[in-house]
Amino acid sequence: MTDNILSLNLATTRRIWGFAEAVNGCLAQGITAISPWRDQIAEIGLAGAARIVHSNGLRVSGVCRGGMFPAVDAAGRAAALDDNRRAVDEAAELGADCLVLVVGGLPAGSRDIAGARAQVADGLAALLQHARACKVPLAIEPLHPMYAADRACVNTLDQALDLCAALGDGVGVAIDVYHVWWDPNLAAAIARAGQMGAIYAHHICDWLVPTRDVLLDRGMMGDGVIDLREFRRMIEAAGFNGPQEVEIFSAENWWKRPGAEVLAICKERFATVCQAD
Amino acid sequence: MTDNILSLNLATTRRIWGFAEAVNGCLAQGITAISPWRDQIAEIGLAGAARIVHSNGLRVSGVCRGGMFPAVDAAGRAAALDDNRRAVDEAAELGADCLVLVVGGLPAGSRDIAGARAQVADGLAALLQHARACKVPLAIEPLHPMYAADRACVNTLDQALDLCAALGDGVGVAIDVYHVWWDPNLAAAIARAGQMGAIYAHHICDWLVPTRDVLLDRGMMGDGVIDLREFRRMIEAAGFNGPQEVEIFSAENWWKRPGAEVLAICKERFATVCQAD
Repeated sequence: MTDNILSLNLATTRRIWGFAEAVNGCLAQGITAISPWRDQIAEIGLAGAARIVHSNGLRVSGVCRGGMFPAVDAAGRAAALDDNRRAVDEAAELGADCLVLVVGGLPAGSRDIAGARAQVADGLAALLQHARACKVPLAIEPLHPMYAADRACVNTLDQALDLCAALGDGVGVAIDVYHVWWDPNLAAAIARAGQMGAIYAHHICDWLVPTRDVLLDRGMMGDGVIDLREFRRMIEAAGFNGPQEVEIFSAENWWKRPGAEVLAICKERFATVCQAD
Repeated sequence: MTDNILSLNLATTRRIWGFAEAVNGCLAQGITAISPWRDQIAEIGLAGAARIVHSNGLRVSGVCRGGMFPAVDAAGRAAALDDNRRAVDEAAELGADCLVLVVGGLPAGSRDIAGARAQVADGLAALLQHARACKVPLAIEPLHPMYAADRACVNTLDQALDLCAALGDGVGVAIDVYHVWWDPNLAAAIARAGQMGAIYAHHICDWLVPTRDVLLDRGMMGDGVIDLREFRRMIEAAGFNGPQEVEIFSAENWWKRPGAEVLAICKERFATVCQAD
């Protein structure tokens, strides 16, 4: 028995649809799980977003995103923590499976990545009490090392799991194939995540060759080099059978197509190249 | 006592100077160590390159590059091995400190990164006998994970050191700050490399924020976020006091400037932001 379903991360249709349009587009194709971004929630309003989610019985596989803990000074870190608490509240209101955390990179002007990582650990610890009280699981998303400077200084699954182990209950990982597929230690790290019960989300897309933009050239599943089938096999073997959440940042391709076409292709690829069995 | 000197990797002036011009440019500024690329050697001819190197008493801190082991079939792998043996011969002729190996990524059409890594291990083992006979150290260069698909499926220093440990004498690593600076395990891995006596080269440049191109937007030392001083401290603490080799791929900035200006700035930054003490 598996609840392996497709969820649409609304980044995939970011420049095509707003929150309500995206939900309508999903429902039209039988997709009943989504993962919205906070700016998309803010645009329609949290109450409006929650109404849409609950009235349609949608599963929210995650809210994107909290994190961004490091800052140049204490005031900046306090502001980040406040914002993260609001993100937890939003995830709770939407009944989300987890709040996805992109932890942040180097503060402006800094070359101290060890210091940034320490700030991340401190920020997570500070956020955790509120998250536990709200029953919102925190999902650390290790990001590809090419984002270490400016987006997330947690760059491998093992590094994220070390944080989870130190922090205890209520903190796990969001495993995005794009960020970790290259890791020589991937299989062991996924198994470790499973043993810890720490897999909260599984994001999918593909790595294109060539990759023309560091941020906005992610590929549709099947168009790149990631063995998504084997990846899912490892994820399920580790005990996670939750949604596969499609998250594609694609300024020059998918964001320029009609939303219905994007979703139809997501569904087709989900069926043909993403299943473990 | 240290022989910590600046070496110019001739990729830094690739679109500015050929081999002979680059050497003249270096000598004009007191730079007496270089690391040429094989296409640059081929253009002037191996004998001509060797004559320039030896008549000027240049140190060749490396020859770039061998590797690219994985291929779609046995014939492709055999051809790669033959080419690698020629690269060893060229490095020997130039009296290079090492032959730098960019090991190669996925064969065309493949999604099997574990298989590619196995092909790399096999290729290294097959090349090693000739390299030892020629007394040319092989330096595996772990490349940034963003090159895992198309350039090198060895993506962390530890992964490279595991290969070195399995292969034995004559195989070490070229540590390029650009590729490994983000690694949460970097300090321990550099120390491990030192204990193994496996550090054969230290390449420098900087990681720019933002990075506008995956391949050709590397920064001048000091213009990015890498703590080059601390990095060098770790390298020297691990026992390597050899050249710091400047290797900057920069299509839109440094490759468009006069070579003498590029070299003068390399020297100034080497003196001001790259020294351990």
